[in-house]
Amino acid sequence: MSENKIPYKIYLSEDEMPKAWYNMRADMKNKPAPLVNPGTGQPMTAAELEGVFCSELVKQELDNDTAYYEIPEEIRSFYKMYRPSPLVRAYCLEEKLGTPAHIYYKFEGNNTSGSHKLNSAIAQAYYAKQQGLKGVTTETGAGQWGTALSMACAYLGLDCKVYMVKCSYEQKPFRREVMRTYGASVTPSPSMDTEVGRKILAEHPGTTGSLGCAISEAVEVAVTHPGYRYVLGSVLNQVLLHQSVIGLESKIAMDKYGIKPDIIIGCAGGGSNLGGLIAPFMGQKLRGEEDYRIIAVEPASCPSFTRGKFAYDFCDTGMICPLAKMYTLGSSFIPSPDHAGGLRFHGMSTILSQLYHDGYMEATSVKQTDVFQAAEAFARVEGILPAPESSHAILVAMQEALKCKETGEEKNILFGLTGTGYFDLVAYENYHNGVMPNNIPTDEDIAASLAKLPKV
Amino acid sequence: MSENKIPYKIYLSEDEMPKAWYNMRADMKNKPAPLVNPGTGQPMTAAELEGVFCSELVKQELDNDTAYYEIPEEIRSFYKMYRPSPLVRAYCLEEKLGTPAHIYYKFEGNNTSGSHKLNSAIAQAYYAKQQGLKGVTTETGAGQWGTALSMACAYLGLDCKVYMVKCSYEQKPFRREVMRTYGASVTPSPSMDTEVGRKILAEHPGTTGSLGCAISEAVEVAVTHPGYRYVLGSVLNQVLLHQSVIGLESKIAMDKYGIKPDIIIGCAGGGSNLGGLIAPFMGQKLRGEEDYRIIAVEPASCPSFTRGKFAYDFCDTGMICPLAKMYTLGSSFIPSPDHAGGLRFHGMSTILSQLYHDGYMEATSVKQTDVFQAAEAFARVEGILPAPESSHAILVAMQEALKCKETGEEKNILFGLTGTGYFDLVAYENYHNGVMPNNIPTDEDIAASLAKLPKV
Repeated sequence: MSENKIPYKIYLSEDEMPKAWYNMRADMKNKPAPLVNPGTGQPMTAAELEGVFCSELVKQELDNDTAYYEIPEEIRSFYKMYRPSPLVRAYCLEEKLGTPAHIYYKFEGNNTSGSHKLNSAIAQAYYAKQQGLKGVTTETGAGQWGTALSMACAYLGLDCKVYMVKCSYEQKPFRREVMRTYGASVTPSPSMDTEVGRKILAEHPGTTGSLGCAISEAVEVAVTHPGYRYVLGSVLNQVLLHQSVIGLESKIAMDKYGIKPDIIIGCAGGGSNLGGLIAPFMGQKLRGEEDYRIIAVEPASCPSFTRGKFAYDFCDTGMICPLAKMYTLGSSFIPSPDHAGGLRFHGMSTILSQLYHDGYMEATSVKQTDVFQAAEAFARVEGILPAPESSHAILVAMQEALKCKETGEEKNILFGLTGTGYFDLVAYENYHNGVMPNNIPTDEDIAASLAKLPKV
Repeated sequence: MSENKIPYKIYLSEDEMPKAWYNMRADMKNKPAPLVNPGTGQPMTAAELEGVFCSELVKQELDNDTAYYEIPEEIRSFYKMYRPSPLVRAYCLEEKLGTPAHIYYKFEGNNTSGSHKLNSAIAQAYYAKQQGLKGVTTETGAGQWGTALSMACAYLGLDCKVYMVKCSYEQKPFRREVMRTYGASVTPSPSMDTEVGRKILAEHPGTTGSLGCAISEAVEVAVTHPGYRYVLGSVLNQVLLHQSVIGLESKIAMDKYGIKPDIIIGCAGGGSNLGGLIAPFMGQKLRGEEDYRIIAVEPASCPSFTRGKFAYDFCDTGMICPLAKMYTLGSSFIPSPDHAGGLRFHGMSTILSQLYHDGYMEATSVKQTDVFQAAEAFARVEGILPAPESSHAILVAMQEALKCKETGEEKNILFGLTGTGYFDLVAYENYHNGVMPNNIPTDEDIAASLAKLPKV
């Protein structure tokens, strides 16, 4: 098909949607290191994990060999409510930048959760339902993941208990109300529901909570309530597997028009979006079939790839979860409270960590004021108010497109537009009012939290 | 094409998108009554209107004869950023209701303005730009229209001055920030910018403003600043013309699959969505080619069709705009402050008023707690958190589908899902907390405001 026939938005038909998820691990020579039990120092067994996670999800978590997992029919039906997501040719942005580059973005924000999180939420809820469970528990900070999970549970008739960091619960009542609309119970954390919550409240009566504490509460409720399991929205191998639908759809759409991306760019927090977007492309790269430049973009205030250490660490600040080998800033690292751009996880997916370590991808970090500047410029020409997270990728895509302007190269740039910023307007307001600082951790800050890495 | 081939979402290709808007007036035997100058009692002339509105838009406003207006190329390009909008087959809702009816909805919420308003905002901004104007002024209440207009102006490089009702400005800072992101100046109304604002502030220093006052300020700024004109997001004939893109796309999509809607349902405030959705279907009905049942749904707290009078009235509460012949509750009518469901205009599009008067459509009014109940049920199965406005149509679509369940009829029901409820979560919260009343005006309330209708 000729180049000038590329529409503004490429929508696959429902028949063209992927029927299986792709597991990058199957094509990795160096597999990601296993999760380790912090008590025994040994790899976590399926039996140990099944106390916390659904059995099928444990299988997916540990499976380094199966390349494709068929997407169950019921999940595909759910996907059809908001997928395929459009692959957008950013004609207006290209024109504004005056670049010869062709910019494409995969837009995952056209659903009420406002992000790609729904792709894994429905999968995790589905397997919980299949196992005959009553419900699932999770934590949420800003509320994006909690919203996605509550939507999936509402659809399947599953109970959904969300522990929401207390300061977010109070400051972001809108996200909380969306979750309530979908029938989830939303509890500010720390709460009196759990032993860990009661302990923290006794010690720190005025605390406004933390993600680490909310995780601990959600896990405790899952393991102490028969018929419940805990689910998590990023970092895990299973999540990257489900999110591969993003990259698979992108690749089918691009193949249809004979477009090969030269550069693939995604924001990176725990890695769920980036790992999903790059999956099939990385598969080709791992198999030596094609080459792509792949760039992870992280916030300068939480730079796990670019300034962290590749080491075993806790996945949670509460230090109750298994250890994962990953690029980490230390589980006690907390980004500056002024950091508004999301992507605040101290570590990174073990799969992406291994791929980065092995040289299959690059990483860069960017300042949040630059991110919001790019977000605003993008919104004005492309019409979509982007999530701060997604805007990390927008910024670097714009930078690469401007390099093409200098060199005259007609590169194809693909980036992931993971979501919308409709619930992030306090951050936009601070940006508009010129009161958004760039608080970047010092070397000493990072060294201090890395000094507390567990010995494995 | 066989019935079971209908996908969850029908997306037209960009080639299939309408290339012209359709003007229902061309096929109306009884044309809508002309706007009247309240000073002279005579129909408003083009020259009089051109002081306030762009020339091309005045032409469109007054043109009762031209059936099709070609959509300029630049507007079509803008449309391609967020259109075609999907026509969704509500399989999940049908299953939940257990109805043999086939339910379809045209979803206009997948853009950052969150509603169909953008369809006319870009058109009005485009003609202002074509005329060489510097910018446009408007008022906004909750902020949906202001957001749409600011997006359109950002795209075209036009200045956008929005007068936002002060209580909304303070209570809905998020909408305000979206507009600022798109470069609009947003001023709380009443302001010191205008004579009318200064006068009102002098008389009522503590006022939190009203839509009527914001209209007055926006109009004053437009007529006193060279290079500016005033634009309006609903009610006007030109707006219904632009919004016909909703119905035209719906009809093309349905024709493609051989589906004829038996019932078409839309919420009705000023009439922009309903008038757009029904346009091509009403055209067939007016020409005697086809018959459709068409239902306008309005809030019981602001029931202009069902309890208003068909008479000349002011379009604004400030009584500075021309008089329009429409179903009205009287321009001094104000819905209860507890009314959360939008659609709070006291009158109705003159086109729709004439059509309703002539028996071409039905109208019904619904209570807001029923509306939010339908909204929540819809969200849980269809995944989209609907705007309260849109949920009026959802409720009646569900009622009609349940009637089909009783009779066993396999009717095709089409309704307009005009937008998303992401900025309406205070209303959802009140609903969840059981503190949402149904304050319906008494006959005396309505008689009192109707008693103040102008003499024409």
